[in-house]
Amino acid sequence: MIEKTTRMNYLFDFYQALLTSKQRNYMELYYLEDYSLGEISELYQVSRQAVYDNIKRTENMLESYEDKLRLYDKYLKQASIIKQLEMEITDKNLLSLIQQLKEID
Amino acid sequence: MIEKTTRMNYLFDFYQALLTSKQRNYMELYYLEDYSLGEISELYQVSRQAVYDNIKRTENMLESYEDKLRLYDKYLKQASIIKQLEMEITDKNLLSLIQQLKEID
Repeated sequence: MIEKTTRMNYLFDFYQALLTSKQRNYMELYYLEDYSLGEISELYQVSRQAVYDNIKRTENMLESYEDKLRLYDKYLKQASIIKQLEMEITDKNLLSLIQQLKEID
Repeated sequence: MIEKTTRMNYLFDFYQALLTSKQRNYMELYYLEDYSLGEISELYQVSRQAVYDNIKRTENMLESYEDKLRLYDKYLKQASIIKQLEMEITDKNLLSLIQQLKEID
């Protein structure tokens, strides 16, 4: 479950711009703020089932975007190579370039 | 026009997985293979206007994905930093890591 939460947090981070604002709100409360389905359903005055269905659908959408664009997968590969570079590079200027690479946004 | 073609080629490269197969086919013929609208309309037995509308809509979709995900923008930033790294690094092992970074796919 922790593994799934981590994955969903990453996928949400990469693809949230493609979601509707309602999908974003539910996902933020559920995955980032750790609200329960019951708490979200009270907050939005909808049934617990409606919240659950919306979140499941959103999870499937995020996985489908990842299937197609693989941004999380590429991020992991890049992070691993950058880590190796950081371990081998001592030059300050080069390390600063590596830092810039990590901070592209 | 050349600038637009280059941009569309990149956006197509980044987001083609989010298009339908018809959209992909038209875009490939028009932008990659340099077919004219008339040639595509003959090939698919549809009106020139239909091909034009489809391509325009697809271009707008690609720009909308770029607005949201900015993969092309990030790619340009990353390419610029990697170029600087390549100019300053002489160590073979480090250069091989940089090469791996460029080839992530």
